[in-house]
Amino acid sequence: MSIKKTVGVLGATGSVGQRFILLLADHPNFELKVLGASHRSAGKKYADAVNWKQTELLPEFAQNIVVSECKADAFKECAVVFSGLDSDYAGTIEKEFEQAGLAVVSNAKNYRRDTDVPLIVPIVNPEHLEIVGEKLEAAQKAGSTKPGYIVCISNCSTAGLVAPLKPLVESFGPIDLLTATTLQALSGAGFSPGVPGMDVLDNIVPYIGGEEDKMEWETKKILGAVSEDKTTVDLLSDEDIRVSAQCNRVAVSDGHTECISFRFKNQPPPSLDQVKKSLRDYVCEASKLGCHSAPKQTIHVLEQNDRPQPRLDRNRDAGYGVSVGRVREDPVLDYKMVVLSHNTVIGAAGAGILIAEILLAKNYL
Amino acid sequence: MSIKKTVGVLGATGSVGQRFILLLADHPNFELKVLGASHRSAGKKYADAVNWKQTELLPEFAQNIVVSECKADAFKECAVVFSGLDSDYAGTIEKEFEQAGLAVVSNAKNYRRDTDVPLIVPIVNPEHLEIVGEKLEAAQKAGSTKPGYIVCISNCSTAGLVAPLKPLVESFGPIDLLTATTLQALSGAGFSPGVPGMDVLDNIVPYIGGEEDKMEWETKKILGAVSEDKTTVDLLSDEDIRVSAQCNRVAVSDGHTECISFRFKNQPPPSLDQVKKSLRDYVCEASKLGCHSAPKQTIHVLEQNDRPQPRLDRNRDAGYGVSVGRVREDPVLDYKMVVLSHNTVIGAAGAGILIAEILLAKNYL
Amino acid sequence: MSIKKTVGVLGATGSVGQRFILLLADHPNFELKVLGASHRSAGKKYADAVNWKQTELLPEFAQNIVVSECKADAFKECAVVFSGLDSDYAGTIEKEFEQAGLAVVSNAKNYRRDTDVPLIVPIVNPEHLEIVGEKLEAAQKAGSTKPGYIVCISNCSTAGLVAPLKPLVESFGPIDLLTATTLQALSGAGFSPGVPGMDVLDNIVPYIGGEEDKMEWETKKILGAVSEDKTTVDLLSDEDIRVSAQCNRVAVSDGHTECISFRFKNQPPPSLDQVKKSLRDYVCEASKLGCHSAPKQTIHVLEQNDRPQPRLDRNRDAGYGVSVGRVREDPVLDYKMVVLSHNTVIGAAGAGILIAEILLAKNYL
Amino acid sequence: MSIKKTVGVLGATGSVGQRFILLLADHPNFELKVLGASHRSAGKKYADAVNWKQTELLPEFAQNIVVSECKADAFKECAVVFSGLDSDYAGTIEKEFEQAGLAVVSNAKNYRRDTDVPLIVPIVNPEHLEIVGEKLEAAQKAGSTKPGYIVCISNCSTAGLVAPLKPLVESFGPIDLLTATTLQALSGAGFSPGVPGMDVLDNIVPYIGGEEDKMEWETKKILGAVSEDKTTVDLLSDEDIRVSAQCNRVAVSDGHTECISFRFKNQPPPSLDQVKKSLRDYVCEASKLGCHSAPKQTIHVLEQNDRPQPRLDRNRDAGYGVSVGRVREDPVLDYKMVVLSHNTVIGAAGAGILIAEILLAKNYL
Repeated sequence: MSIKKTVGVLGATGSVGQRFILLLADHPNFELKVLGASHRSAGKKYADAVNWKQTELLPEFAQNIVVSECKADAFKECAVVFSGLDSDYAGTIEKEFEQAGLAVVSNAKNYRRDTDVPLIVPIVNPEHLEIVGEKLEAAQKAGSTKPGYIVCISNCSTAGLVAPLKPLVESFGPIDLLTATTLQALSGAGFSPGVPGMDVLDNIVPYIGGEEDKMEWETKKILGAVSEDKTTVDLLSDEDIRVSAQCNRVAVSDGHTECISFRFKNQPPPSLDQVKKSLRDYVCEASKLGCHSAPKQTIHVLEQNDRPQPRLDRNRDAGYGVSVGRVREDPVLDYKMVVLSHNTVIGAAGAGILIAEILLAKNYL
Repeated sequence: MSIKKTVGVLGATGSVGQRFILLLADHPNFELKVLGASHRSAGKKYADAVNWKQTELLPEFAQNIVVSECKADAFKECAVVFSGLDSDYAGTIEKEFEQAGLAVVSNAKNYRRDTDVPLIVPIVNPEHLEIVGEKLEAAQKAGSTKPGYIVCISNCSTAGLVAPLKPLVESFGPIDLLTATTLQALSGAGFSPGVPGMDVLDNIVPYIGGEEDKMEWETKKILGAVSEDKTTVDLLSDEDIRVSAQCNRVAVSDGHTECISFRFKNQPPPSLDQVKKSLRDYVCEASKLGCHSAPKQTIHVLEQNDRPQPRLDRNRDAGYGVSVGRVREDPVLDYKMVVLSHNTVIGAAGAGILIAEILLAKNYL
Repeated sequence: MSIKKTVGVLGATGSVGQRFILLLADHPNFELKVLGASHRSAGKKYADAVNWKQTELLPEFAQNIVVSECKADAFKECAVVFSGLDSDYAGTIEKEFEQAGLAVVSNAKNYRRDTDVPLIVPIVNPEHLEIVGEKLEAAQKAGSTKPGYIVCISNCSTAGLVAPLKPLVESFGPIDLLTATTLQALSGAGFSPGVPGMDVLDNIVPYIGGEEDKMEWETKKILGAVSEDKTTVDLLSDEDIRVSAQCNRVAVSDGHTECISFRFKNQPPPSLDQVKKSLRDYVCEASKLGCHSAPKQTIHVLEQNDRPQPRLDRNRDAGYGVSVGRVREDPVLDYKMVVLSHNTVIGAAGAGILIAEILLAKNYL
Repeated sequence: MSIKKTVGVLGATGSVGQRFILLLADHPNFELKVLGASHRSAGKKYADAVNWKQTELLPEFAQNIVVSECKADAFKECAVVFSGLDSDYAGTIEKEFEQAGLAVVSNAKNYRRDTDVPLIVPIVNPEHLEIVGEKLEAAQKAGSTKPGYIVCISNCSTAGLVAPLKPLVESFGPIDLLTATTLQALSGAGFSPGVPGMDVLDNIVPYIGGEEDKMEWETKKILGAVSEDKTTVDLLSDEDIRVSAQCNRVAVSDGHTECISFRFKNQPPPSLDQVKKSLRDYVCEASKLGCHSAPKQTIHVLEQNDRPQPRLDRNRDAGYGVSVGRVREDPVLDYKMVVLSHNTVIGAAGAGILIAEILLAKNYL
């Protein structure tokens, strides 16, 4: 049995940080040893520093870890550092970590739009990690020390959107028009205080700040290709694809539901059966690589009329599988369907873990 | 002061029937005297027959009315009969009432697709009632007795969809592409038992049987025009407009939220300001006619980012006004917006009352 | 028609302040002219200063009132000032207002426990306002200027608890043991941010800071009597009554449900029918005085097994009536029952309005 | 490794039956081979017969089992049969199974009040199973074939109530007064249709048919003792203990919260610390016997003010552990506390599994 890699978590007391800790308990590849948080928490035992709000109990291994400040020095033994930092702090801290030669997998939005930073949905575009590979290889060739790097996790609602698109694009060529209306879970907004109770009791909030723009922009990066020199991602242009998102917050704890419709560039489009078969047959690279958290079935195509439903379907493949239902022809574009993805798993911390597993499988850690 | 017209309600113990009763309490034009329900209820006092589940108390005037069976005879004094019948019964009973010379305003779906039956959203297409006028006039000319007729109330989610489209089509010409994703309230499903609690607690149900088809079809009738001979409605064709709906049930008591996007046939489209102005300036015919329940403001254009919200906005103009927010350009079609309408008011019983007020104002009762 | 008294509201932008404004729109006795809030809001039009979060729209009359700072000077024309101030500020400001000769009706907790400050549930113990009368009379006799005073509104959950006890104590003598388990609405916690959504979705929070102590203590003051010299309230002692409260926050917007049980000091206790009759027959003094907001029926005794329910019963008598259901014998104490009261009406701002109406009827304003 | 016992489930398509199936997947002692349901389902593959509504997927092993009718013949190989039958059918069918020599562990209420049928909360009173042991031994002595028997699972809300009482009674003697107000989860009402959504959205239903009586009665049986001749349970009398329950349905999916208070017969009562220690130190017999599903910690005493909460604490020890919080002195009785138990685990199907494990450990299967 191979030795586990030491890893750390930044922003460990926040909601994303708590999820990283849960997912790293008993992980076969990683051993979580360093927890970083604000100076208010630093020096305390984690169990005393955190207001633990998960439905699973705080794992024993983490209870007595003494919280560190978010300085690269404290994390120097870490093969990878998972960042659940708030965007107010992530910019500076993650850059410092990268410059100290550390590998950072971040849930923050700060570097997502840098073209030389891979923006990864691990069941969709792990091939963009080639940018990391190239950087490591270049350093090795140059005889430099192993360089640090940042990999960004996509926005949670983007993850669910692009998951079913990937196999379709691979099978049938580009999608040029795409609309998505989301019904997003509360956990995406954290819990301090997150969404006020009065806003979601007998109510819908038809707005999530910045979310629609993230979905529209990130889709173009994730579905884009690595440049020839392997140093950046070439974004799709408005000519390639136009994306329109409408985002709503609803009274659901976990699981983003998205009603999407889309048109293929190549006409006539594939048949309904071809579309479903393509979704069903898709095996993501992480599964092929045998990554621990990779879903057994990447995309679950449900045939019951009233599925997927968040309460019943969000935990398929421990949240790493995406559920698609009601695939049918669309009178305006080509097809429409309902997509359900677990926002804190494949859309946030869980994606970070799977990205790190892929990095490990590719020998990038 | 004019004498009130006697009216009746069919299906009086059901959820739609209960709403009719609430809305007819203290109505300036109508006096509700006859309540029809199943033979199990017939002969009982209404207060004893009904399982009253409204947030307002059962009005005193209705408590002691003895429930009748749904036979035309019992309703012969009624200037208009409001039907909240279940579709299992509405077909036969409403036809019998019509043949007995009664005016029926029905919430049931049975006759909505008959081209000679007006399908009315009262703040949108009261001009389709011309079919009724023509029928009455023809009978009068022929010296026949006053004929009965059926007018159908639209499906609740259709009402919210077409309300903002009407002024836009009037101002800027046809809309040829239209998509709508709905987040629909529980009250639309009634309460015996309606939607099970486990289906909407921490959950979304991405399916409402028949609903998407109703929205796609009814829109084409409501936005269509009365035929030259004034006896039928000419439906819009697929060439005129293509409509795509995705319907979801959510944990909201009242108020359907719809995220819609659309394209104008005439390009370039109007500006964003022109679109908003057209919505704001729209005065529905019922308001011009001075109908009691007509909204003071037909369409409320909200400028706050996070509105409309069901809990905060559904009761504008007592539920007869429709709220529109987040009007903005759409990367795929021309514009997108969020529409909120009160499903049991402008989308069901309330629409029936306003239709009857319009019929009265037009001297069709 | 009499001239309306000018009134003001402190803490006007907060949730209690907003409710005061709603309840004062079109009030027959009071004209709201002065709105006080923090210095951040002062100088702005109210419509611009407030984040209005009520289900009814901001009344027109209030929109253009320029917000004042909370200084007595700005309120000197006010016959009464309603305070919705946060307890962090209420202590100093309300005292300043009192010393400036103003009548303050406060929802804050700061002075509730002062024995010379009446703590009033207006449908229960308006006789405690005699302390105010005595103070005014004494000043008049002494030829002093009219003194200011503070009257406190009870805690919301206390209001529902004591309402049905008052007629029982009047009819059958003291209650010596009392237990109450509450299921309290979100609106009691305000909305900035109030209770986090994740805490009440598929959840109960079995704790509300300070609430149980308030219920146990305030009950002893409200059910106590004015001292012989009419300057203080004599609290009931632990020998008179022992009260035990258990408080829970639940996913309800408005309306506190309380499951209570109690024992009479005089044994044997009255019969079940006597208990119900006493509750039904109770007419609160505010009703006898003809106060505008007084309930037509103070206590509604519901006979259906499954009532009262917040959604269906909270608005009886516009929230000024209290609903009681499931009155039945209790195997441990004498009787148990379910009480529902509207927490923002009879338990907060609404109580303030009715208190002021009583003060007016008693010529204390 | 020992050979697994074959077991069956009656009422397999219902909500309790579905839970039995989930809990029996990969069970170390039992192999589920026979599924019984109504004649409508009989003959179909289980996956085709069931409307699966669990948050976990239908286990593979069960998908292809062909559903049997509920006849003893089909279950004759079963060491134990778990019954999730509706009470309309349970009476006849369970009696037939018992008479056919089968061991039945039933969630139905039909035989709970028979004094010779053990009514078991497995973490509380497994000693009542002595009645089964005695019956088996008597038959063995008499040389008869092994007799069938029925063991009943308690009502869900009773389970949570008695769990913390058991160690207290063992440590400090009888409890003579006991009150409980419950906030019960939807899953207790099943899902066809269960509680209507409109009843629990922004609402509380302060009534659950028969529930209060069950809690008050069952407590007296479960805390009673086996008779000297080991054939019946001697119930506690009203002189021993008086119990008062008030039951509410709330918008929680799983997990019953109960606010309880109680008085010890022996006065003065133990100290608060003694009470907590007794709860903490309690190790149920199932744990001592090493039963697979027995909780590691039978009662979790939580010290945070706002716990236990259903969403955060219901899954402790996979739902077999009960959480107790806010243990404090009670002004009316001796102590009060909040108890949270997982209603479908320790309060229903899960209890059945653990009872069977105890029966196995005691060699009664």
